[in-house]
Amino acid sequence: MKTAFCVFLIVLFFMPFMVSAQSTKRPRDYGIRFGVLPTGALNAITDVPGVRVGQVTLLEGQRVRTGVTAILPHEGNLFQQKCQAAIYVGNGFGKLAGYTQVEELGTLETPIVLTNTLGVPTAADAVIDYTLAQPGNEQVRSLNPVVGETNDGGLNDIRSRPVTKQHVLEAIRQARTGAVEEGNVGAGTGTVCFGFKGGIGTASRKLPVSLGGYTVGVLVQTNFGGVLQIAGVPVGVELGKFSFKEKLDGSCMMVVLTDAPLDARNLKRLAKRAFMGLARTGGMASNGSGDYVIAVSTANRIPNSSKSTVDEMKLLRNDDASPCFLAAIEATEEAIINSLFAARSMTTANGYEVGQLPVEKVVELLRKAGQIK
Amino acid sequence: MKTAFCVFLIVLFFMPFMVSAQSTKRPRDYGIRFGVLPTGALNAITDVPGVRVGQVTLLEGQRVRTGVTAILPHEGNLFQQKCQAAIYVGNGFGKLAGYTQVEELGTLETPIVLTNTLGVPTAADAVIDYTLAQPGNEQVRSLNPVVGETNDGGLNDIRSRPVTKQHVLEAIRQARTGAVEEGNVGAGTGTVCFGFKGGIGTASRKLPVSLGGYTVGVLVQTNFGGVLQIAGVPVGVELGKFSFKEKLDGSCMMVVLTDAPLDARNLKRLAKRAFMGLARTGGMASNGSGDYVIAVSTANRIPNSSKSTVDEMKLLRNDDASPCFLAAIEATEEAIINSLFAARSMTTANGYEVGQLPVEKVVELLRKAGQIK
Amino acid sequence: MKTAFCVFLIVLFFMPFMVSAQSTKRPRDYGIRFGVLPTGALNAITDVPGVRVGQVTLLEGQRVRTGVTAILPHEGNLFQQKCQAAIYVGNGFGKLAGYTQVEELGTLETPIVLTNTLGVPTAADAVIDYTLAQPGNEQVRSLNPVVGETNDGGLNDIRSRPVTKQHVLEAIRQARTGAVEEGNVGAGTGTVCFGFKGGIGTASRKLPVSLGGYTVGVLVQTNFGGVLQIAGVPVGVELGKFSFKEKLDGSCMMVVLTDAPLDARNLKRLAKRAFMGLARTGGMASNGSGDYVIAVSTANRIPNSSKSTVDEMKLLRNDDASPCFLAAIEATEEAIINSLFAARSMTTANGYEVGQLPVEKVVELLRKAGQIK
Amino acid sequence: MKTAFCVFLIVLFFMPFMVSAQSTKRPRDYGIRFGVLPTGALNAITDVPGVRVGQVTLLEGQRVRTGVTAILPHEGNLFQQKCQAAIYVGNGFGKLAGYTQVEELGTLETPIVLTNTLGVPTAADAVIDYTLAQPGNEQVRSLNPVVGETNDGGLNDIRSRPVTKQHVLEAIRQARTGAVEEGNVGAGTGTVCFGFKGGIGTASRKLPVSLGGYTVGVLVQTNFGGVLQIAGVPVGVELGKFSFKEKLDGSCMMVVLTDAPLDARNLKRLAKRAFMGLARTGGMASNGSGDYVIAVSTANRIPNSSKSTVDEMKLLRNDDASPCFLAAIEATEEAIINSLFAARSMTTANGYEVGQLPVEKVVELLRKAGQIK
Repeated sequence: MKTAFCVFLIVLFFMPFMVSAQSTKRPRDYGIRFGVLPTGALNAITDVPGVRVGQVTLLEGQRVRTGVTAILPHEGNLFQQKCQAAIYVGNGFGKLAGYTQVEELGTLETPIVLTNTLGVPTAADAVIDYTLAQPGNEQVRSLNPVVGETNDGGLNDIRSRPVTKQHVLEAIRQARTGAVEEGNVGAGTGTVCFGFKGGIGTASRKLPVSLGGYTVGVLVQTNFGGVLQIAGVPVGVELGKFSFKEKLDGSCMMVVLTDAPLDARNLKRLAKRAFMGLARTGGMASNGSGDYVIAVSTANRIPNSSKSTVDEMKLLRNDDASPCFLAAIEATEEAIINSLFAARSMTTANGYEVGQLPVEKVVELLRKAGQIK
Repeated sequence: MKTAFCVFLIVLFFMPFMVSAQSTKRPRDYGIRFGVLPTGALNAITDVPGVRVGQVTLLEGQRVRTGVTAILPHEGNLFQQKCQAAIYVGNGFGKLAGYTQVEELGTLETPIVLTNTLGVPTAADAVIDYTLAQPGNEQVRSLNPVVGETNDGGLNDIRSRPVTKQHVLEAIRQARTGAVEEGNVGAGTGTVCFGFKGGIGTASRKLPVSLGGYTVGVLVQTNFGGVLQIAGVPVGVELGKFSFKEKLDGSCMMVVLTDAPLDARNLKRLAKRAFMGLARTGGMASNGSGDYVIAVSTANRIPNSSKSTVDEMKLLRNDDASPCFLAAIEATEEAIINSLFAARSMTTANGYEVGQLPVEKVVELLRKAGQIK
Repeated sequence: MKTAFCVFLIVLFFMPFMVSAQSTKRPRDYGIRFGVLPTGALNAITDVPGVRVGQVTLLEGQRVRTGVTAILPHEGNLFQQKCQAAIYVGNGFGKLAGYTQVEELGTLETPIVLTNTLGVPTAADAVIDYTLAQPGNEQVRSLNPVVGETNDGGLNDIRSRPVTKQHVLEAIRQARTGAVEEGNVGAGTGTVCFGFKGGIGTASRKLPVSLGGYTVGVLVQTNFGGVLQIAGVPVGVELGKFSFKEKLDGSCMMVVLTDAPLDARNLKRLAKRAFMGLARTGGMASNGSGDYVIAVSTANRIPNSSKSTVDEMKLLRNDDASPCFLAAIEATEEAIINSLFAARSMTTANGYEVGQLPVEKVVELLRKAGQIK
Repeated sequence: MKTAFCVFLIVLFFMPFMVSAQSTKRPRDYGIRFGVLPTGALNAITDVPGVRVGQVTLLEGQRVRTGVTAILPHEGNLFQQKCQAAIYVGNGFGKLAGYTQVEELGTLETPIVLTNTLGVPTAADAVIDYTLAQPGNEQVRSLNPVVGETNDGGLNDIRSRPVTKQHVLEAIRQARTGAVEEGNVGAGTGTVCFGFKGGIGTASRKLPVSLGGYTVGVLVQTNFGGVLQIAGVPVGVELGKFSFKEKLDGSCMMVVLTDAPLDARNLKRLAKRAFMGLARTGGMASNGSGDYVIAVSTANRIPNSSKSTVDEMKLLRNDDASPCFLAAIEATEEAIINSLFAARSMTTANGYEVGQLPVEKVVELLRKAGQIK
């Protein structure tokens, strides 16, 4: 644990540098477009007002490559002011914590934390620490941590379980609005996607006022297989990167935030559309892939206690939810590709190497296909 | 069809007489109590303001014993002013129509119709007729009929499919507030429950004002097996009525109405409690039993079209839903037993006889057990 | 009804001619490829051994454009020899019959019938007729018809409900192996997809022996919106065919057959992958779209009655299911596009016209994008 | 942590004595009968061959009253030889770990651990420790700990989170066949049920050979509210113990083991029947109650890796599952009441006292009601 803590400090120290080195240009900077809806200002989950993201990256030699990504839907006390929420299970080969209570009650009462598979209990424990210690929560004796994960055990020595509660608390503490780092960062540090280095990606859509004016933001932790398509172009086939001899498995955590006033039922529908966005990238939800979508609305807050027995709320009508659905599809597709553009090659001590997406070749392929003009 | 129509007229003509002959005293009239909450004025689903029930009974010699029961949640155009709704599947060996759309959209847009298993398509077709023909629905081209069923094929020549669209339309047309007939009536005409003659039953609970003041009403179509308990007294065992050699299968349709402002998510939870009420009677949801609960709230109406993209509503908080849950359990338990007290013995042409509950013996057993004082 | 029957005869008479006029070349004939797996011999659902398809097309002036498509998983008595099955609800704004029993018991016991929304009860009633009348089913008193639908109410006078039980029985009777007609035929006669004329489409994948050697076949009834992509090429955007002013709604019924030995749990997973195939075409599962997948395996048959209390079976391991998943994605994507290539323009009496996909322009776009070489 | 470890040793030392002092007579010893099926030899979950239970009890002054209960379905390496399994959520106000993967894959690959709400992450982490360290699991990098919980925060200082990984590992290590301690033990140390002291309870049913001869065993952790019924007798009402002013909430974890060859689908159905058993005791699944059932079959083992792509198995037919269903209902009802008979009164430092069930009064009530003869 002592070693880990030193690493932790080092990581914090160097992270800004490492990250700025990583992601120079995003797909949109090359002229690539995903779908038909406009993005938010940052093209990030943080385009949804009040949403904050914090990340801690663990890099230690060629052994530890993992981390934590925390998403906070609003700036207040989440336990006391819950958000309407839903979780959709695309493929449940995964260990996400917190599913059944969100399903039953339709609310989220903690930050959302992403990490590696074997780090889920530690992260959940840290979320309990965080929530019990928050001012106003002195009487809380029951809470439902929501922690998602993917398995970075190819590049990361996952059995050593390097993530500590301190890392998780630090990710929550760091959470801020503004641009979100992508690629080999936080919970995406050691992930692999379509045979390339994966990582964290984010994107957003801002609906025109005529369609409601709502923002839908997505953050993904990409770690899955299939036959890669970028803006429809069969990059995986063209690069000969797909093979049935390779292992197809892996996972994708998708977090969708919106300020559209959706209740749990419509958030579950929204979440399902994010999974459709994954399908558009060539993802196949192979047997071993834990593909989950956590969808949260910031519009109606549900107080933990109330003098009234009823909550008054405005809810988007079913008939008017479709533009949000399309926004979730497009933003998820783009967030996944964003993660691939930002991630950088990585090698393990025993020689296992995962190369980054050959961005120049990809850009060339998309240019040929007319997807970059 | 001609013959059937004559039967239909005869049935309508004689029904009032038959029914008044059937149900003289309900369990409460004997001093039997189910649970701890007070009933509504009628101890019926129609205690929920605006709820109407209509029934058509088909009795033709010793061959046709079936019918239709229709429940209308409010007096308006249900398609234009939808109710929030949910359906819980206790055991899905059944053919209920309309499940998936209620699950997706959280609303009910037609009357609820109950009939026999093979009559579901005819009933659904009649509900389409009814809805398309309603003033204001001239442009409707899609609607979701909700039709429940149980299999009365022991006492009824179900393969002859005697229920017609006219019967269903007549049940809807007849629907009215006030007391609801129980026993061998409507969709319960030919059913069997715990080896005794089953049928339609109803009950309600009216919460004290301190618990919200809401009414929860239940109507059941009882046709299932298990080891009968009445107010906890093991009547089935005492009467030696239970046997593993008998077929345990059958079904129970439960309809729960309430004026509590519950959305689809909480209505599904309410529906699940009705299934717990079935468990209290000794029901076991055997493999072949199609046990479904349709739960509807009359509090918030969802307009089919609206100038606004949002609906404003008041919704009961999760924390305050428990008394409604208990009300659903108790009212369902009582409604099932009510159906048994009201039903009368029936014999088929080929000599199959289903005896009614021996009420006097039962009363004696409950008296001995201290459940009637 | 008399009129309808005449039409029916006329339709049967002319159908071969009409159909041969319709579908000249399929996308593969132009060199378009979907995914990486090889197709079956016919590239049709009927590549799965024993699977039969029958279709009845109703065309009457400019008013009636609808029909029936029946899929029979095997040549035997389906009620007596049930298939393992599952239904996945992509978006439940639909009226499919039979969901809850398939979910509970994991089996299919009737042909699968597709038709229009308001024709579901009639079709279900016909399936009851068919099953009750089958030799060996003389004692059957309960059965679960599975009927899917989409709303063809734009091109078809759906409120007149032209589909009769005879049409449904004829579709079942006609069912045969071999090539399947696509486009404006059967249940796809009056459908609209991505703003173009939709219809019936089919495709298949045959896994290499190293991946199990199984066949996965798909048949779709396409009637939904979104932003069309063909083999990844954004045809909808390029043709300026997508608009937020247009109604996005509609539905897609997907039927997946396989000879892979999957039980209900893994068939539900397979079904979900078909929905991912829809996502790849640019479908968005808008609020009003009833998107359902019915998945059936022909490998293990479950006898209706048995001397044994256990069924012995071989089941594909979870770990080996992924190639089937990819096959379902690819075959569904291709089946949808096949439906668009085969469908032909249609106009209503009141001037509403739905144009067919401009195949030549599309081919040109795909050639430019490098998707046809 | 040091203190906790001392307590831990003390607990281990005194536990046998304490427990033997607690439970003298079980309800059956008084002549009380639940249902109609015979029990297994021990009337315990361990009647299912190979099933082992281990418990660690934490008692420290008037502050710490909690513990761990571990259930191991078979004596082998559970990860390498998985069991078919399902989890049913009666009411999802709970934090059970492992739900989604069991739902997706239909298997259990770790011991089942029960503890208190805030101890779930620690317990899950310990299960990871245990599994990674098992011989044969050297390459395991992903596993799905199943941990259930209830909130013992009334009698236990839950916010201090006294459960450590060592406690959990010790409970697993201790697991053995034979009689199971009930009452204030393991995960039931600090629980409250129907306003009385709750705890761990267990029971079983052994089906006659004519009904399959299978054993169904249940273990419960009782911590919920409602209006207590014992063998149908309304004990809660008679003792005036029920009040709407009291908090109704709480939870119940139910673990069902069987040697009947049920797959995940039928295990989920079996699990639902356990929830019906809870309903029979007067449980109401109030809003705040986390009521879950984990059901596992020991009949078919699913190897983690296999040379074959198919698993061969025998599975009980749907038609023959009903006796197992009834067994689950009855055993759950009895296990809950057993927990109440075994538990002993407890007081907190700040004076909150939870009295044990007044067994003599209860026996008298049941005698009067004819339920003890």
